[in-house]
Amino acid sequence: MSVDPVALTQQLIRCPSVTPEEGGAIEVMDQVLSEAGFATQRCDRNGIANLFARWGEGRNGRTFGFNGHTDVVPVGNPDDWTYPPFSAWIEDGILYGRGACDMKSGVAAFAAAAIDFVRDTPPDGSIVLAITGDEEGDGVDGTAAILDWMQDNGEAMDHCLVGEPTCPEQMGEMMKIGRRGSMSAWITARGRQGHSAYPHRALNPLQPLVRYLDRLASRELDTGTDHFDPSTLAIVTVDTGNPANNVIPAQATACVNIRFNDAHHSRDLSAWLQEEAQRIEADTGITLDLRIKVSGESFVTPPGELSDLIGQAVTAQTGLNPVLSTSGGTSDARFVRSHCPVVEFGLVGQSMHQVDEHVRVEQIDQLKTIYGRILRGYFDRG
Amino acid sequence: MSVDPVALTQQLIRCPSVTPEEGGAIEVMDQVLSEAGFATQRCDRNGIANLFARWGEGRNGRTFGFNGHTDVVPVGNPDDWTYPPFSAWIEDGILYGRGACDMKSGVAAFAAAAIDFVRDTPPDGSIVLAITGDEEGDGVDGTAAILDWMQDNGEAMDHCLVGEPTCPEQMGEMMKIGRRGSMSAWITARGRQGHSAYPHRALNPLQPLVRYLDRLASRELDTGTDHFDPSTLAIVTVDTGNPANNVIPAQATACVNIRFNDAHHSRDLSAWLQEEAQRIEADTGITLDLRIKVSGESFVTPPGELSDLIGQAVTAQTGLNPVLSTSGGTSDARFVRSHCPVVEFGLVGQSMHQVDEHVRVEQIDQLKTIYGRILRGYFDRG
Repeated sequence: MSVDPVALTQQLIRCPSVTPEEGGAIEVMDQVLSEAGFATQRCDRNGIANLFARWGEGRNGRTFGFNGHTDVVPVGNPDDWTYPPFSAWIEDGILYGRGACDMKSGVAAFAAAAIDFVRDTPPDGSIVLAITGDEEGDGVDGTAAILDWMQDNGEAMDHCLVGEPTCPEQMGEMMKIGRRGSMSAWITARGRQGHSAYPHRALNPLQPLVRYLDRLASRELDTGTDHFDPSTLAIVTVDTGNPANNVIPAQATACVNIRFNDAHHSRDLSAWLQEEAQRIEADTGITLDLRIKVSGESFVTPPGELSDLIGQAVTAQTGLNPVLSTSGGTSDARFVRSHCPVVEFGLVGQSMHQVDEHVRVEQIDQLKTIYGRILRGYFDRG
Repeated sequence: MSVDPVALTQQLIRCPSVTPEEGGAIEVMDQVLSEAGFATQRCDRNGIANLFARWGEGRNGRTFGFNGHTDVVPVGNPDDWTYPPFSAWIEDGILYGRGACDMKSGVAAFAAAAIDFVRDTPPDGSIVLAITGDEEGDGVDGTAAILDWMQDNGEAMDHCLVGEPTCPEQMGEMMKIGRRGSMSAWITARGRQGHSAYPHRALNPLQPLVRYLDRLASRELDTGTDHFDPSTLAIVTVDTGNPANNVIPAQATACVNIRFNDAHHSRDLSAWLQEEAQRIEADTGITLDLRIKVSGESFVTPPGELSDLIGQAVTAQTGLNPVLSTSGGTSDARFVRSHCPVVEFGLVGQSMHQVDEHVRVEQIDQLKTIYGRILRGYFDRG
């Protein structure tokens, strides 16, 4: 059998799998992969549908993994769409629909490539697909659940490709080998209210707060690392809500957001934020209370076999030499990275999460070809 | 004739002269002073009632001036008062009512003292009373209007006593020989919104704003002058209203309030605020727009004849040596000061503007006695 990746993408888009709804999409993948000889296993958790699929028996050779998701973000007002968001309409070579680029096309392209590959040149090794129905939500019962299930069942991947859209504008221009970490700190400065004519009788929380924020923002966290741009700290809000210019307020709040590279761990950054707050407290007697939330640590898969393979496959297909980037927001690569080397490569993401999300049909075919080249390269070398 | 200052205070309190209402209070003073031989003249402006009164013909001798107001601040919810706010109820030696200390009692005490004085020991000189119905409001048509009228009509004072309550806790402990200036600056920092993961694509207005505010608050404006405490700058609010910790805001605002002594003029302070803003702009490319409002310049009547006279009168009556202060908020002395030397002395102001505003009856009599001593001393020396 062979699978048309465009038709499969359309079939998936017609499943209204808005997170956390399965919507039939995981079912479709289960059926398509089973029919092609993959051993499939649902690893649902807390109502989230997840699919594990393996081609290849025993432990001979290496295991290539693919991770993707079939859930999609909400469509907003369907009337705003040119074509109904779950109709998978094709017009002038463009396929429209929620999930068209993020990332039902990526799942379909890899499945189609893998099915052709194992049929035509069965490798000395295994191919695993970890497909989740919860990437756009919290993600705690999605890819993480599949990885937990794999751990419990003696399953593993040697390398993993995540099929998220990674190209800003042009097919093939970028892959992602890691992500920065992200954390936020909410700061509350508590003083004592008073009349601005008598500041010595009040304790103004704003003066230590602005000094603290200036110190934080003035520090160069690093100058970048091998694979990362410099870490950044942004003051995102400072608020007081005091309408009276003759009153010193009792309290003020602020929030800073830090995007950090592999020169840092959130632990050390948290300690630095606390130390600076204590310095301010020692200088001024005003306490700065911090509430810190870490969204994720930074991670990177250093350039190596996987990124080389992807680069060669992309160049062969598109003529472009993809940039190895660590930019952008979060993805399920943050779970996979503690399991095995992981790199992300997929379509142009421009219209993701937007009204009239779409993908050029020819790019789905291109992506299937690139994924096929990666598989051939991987098992040729293994 | 003689006037009981307590009864006159009661009569004035019963006039509901909440700014800008005359409420009958200016009428009462006009009648009382006329009957005692003062030449009175209404100098109303823009609906505000004002009274000018003079005892003494021609230009022989010196002119002692008194400035006060009969208007009062609103009562709030009358049900919150123990006694109705315009009833002027006396209980256990305490007179309750709106204006009891600020400052119908002061006006009554001076009028009673002046009436006794001109009857018993007619001086070789003149006494002028400038009584306004608009001190608690903007004040532009109150004392200022009387001074304008005086200017136009060849009237003048050689020295002026303002009868505002000046004692924080104990009768006689403080007079005021000047006031600090006050000004506020509202700052708007305008940048360019963006994602906090890509601060280089945005222009964060908060980072320059907190640096600017820290620089302003860190500067020692002065270490105090002969009659003034050090000038102060307070950051009173910083606001952004950005709920999203992954967004760099486009704009942020702040306000600082400066209370400054006679080492400064608002012009120089405004120039400093602008220069610091320009330094920030040069460093960061972000414009800080300033809107500056000057409420008043600082002024001082250096210790001299008037403060000496007041000090001696207070000491003779209370045994206390009043402090020569320049603390506190604004008063009509700010208008009088460009006319002649001006000092403020009056009752204990603790309950001013509050519910159950009150004054000890004996302190009204004490104040009348002190004002009488000041008049005797002034014309003995003249």
